[in-house]
Amino acid sequence: MSRIVTRFCAACGEPIVRRVPAGDSRERDVCEHCGAVHYVNPRPVVGTIPVWQDTVLLCRRAIEPRYGKWTLPAGFMEVGETTREGALRETLEEAQARVSLGPLFTMIDVPYIEQVHVFFRAELLDLEFGPGQESLEVRLFREADVPWQELAFRTVAQTLRLFFADRARGEFGTHVHTIETPARLAQAGRP
Amino acid sequence: MSRIVTRFCAACGEPIVRRVPAGDSRERDVCEHCGAVHYVNPRPVVGTIPVWQDTVLLCRRAIEPRYGKWTLPAGFMEVGETTREGALRETLEEAQARVSLGPLFTMIDVPYIEQVHVFFRAELLDLEFGPGQESLEVRLFREADVPWQELAFRTVAQTLRLFFADRARGEFGTHVHTIETPARLAQAGRP
Repeated sequence: MSRIVTRFCAACGEPIVRRVPAGDSRERDVCEHCGAVHYVNPRPVVGTIPVWQDTVLLCRRAIEPRYGKWTLPAGFMEVGETTREGALRETLEEAQARVSLGPLFTMIDVPYIEQVHVFFRAELLDLEFGPGQESLEVRLFREADVPWQELAFRTVAQTLRLFFADRARGEFGTHVHTIETPARLAQAGRP
Repeated sequence: MSRIVTRFCAACGEPIVRRVPAGDSRERDVCEHCGAVHYVNPRPVVGTIPVWQDTVLLCRRAIEPRYGKWTLPAGFMEVGETTREGALRETLEEAQARVSLGPLFTMIDVPYIEQVHVFFRAELLDLEFGPGQESLEVRLFREADVPWQELAFRTVAQTLRLFFADRARGEFGTHVHTIETPARLAQAGRP
């Protein structure tokens, strides 16, 4: 679900131009016809780390991007819901899994794709899970069996690494991270 | 900055219709002409709690909504930046304040306006602050002097209440909350 290139005003249908609106400091999609300014903001992705005893639930994706790769249940937050409600909904949709939601575990910025990924710890309420429409397969993995080379997203890999590290030390925190790119690091003057 | 009502396809300029796309479960803005589906997601708002000794910095708003009311420095997250970068930018823009950013303090869902508000703790580096373009006035407040009845937003009031409570007990956490409305509570069957 990448962004659509904006060429026309969604309010009045006239062509838009790219310019800095009065009182602003950034270029926006502006409609000279009706005056609308079309702001674009990063999108929240919400999910869970569903745990059963010493295992974690992962879903094998039945959709692009990353068809066939493993992920924690997560997806774009919908309007009208909270981060927690979105995380529960995605867990039910992708893994048919009912969980008891725990604390916020990771908030990971992914600036180059304009997303913020938020994961909550969660406990599976039962073993009645299975693949939802967007999953090929849903399975529980012990830490030693996690398919690290077959994970769909860097935020999922990072969240799982942090989860197992916190579990090993016996104390769970809340972690804020960024997935960086060489381009951004170079821009910031960092190697 | 409320949302613009979508009537036309931003990709091709033809009128959009409201329907459930194939493989989806929710109504979206769909273009029957070019096939574009225009998803809408909640927007992140990012800010800081800038602290100097026993005081907290607040800004009096020079813009609508809530002109003249007091707020923590915060605003809509921009594409290409992280939550932390956005929080620093807003603090500089609204209060001309340079801070050392601390841990994530609150993530507060505001589902009825389709926003998620994120506040980081922060320490002012110096007292060289002042009103930016969107502020009438910037001041430091002791807890006893906070203008509780004149705060701009419920997420700011909640963040400040949690901040002073955590400070009093000598230990700061990370808090996830929701600003509820009677309509949402009624829908969920809660009083």
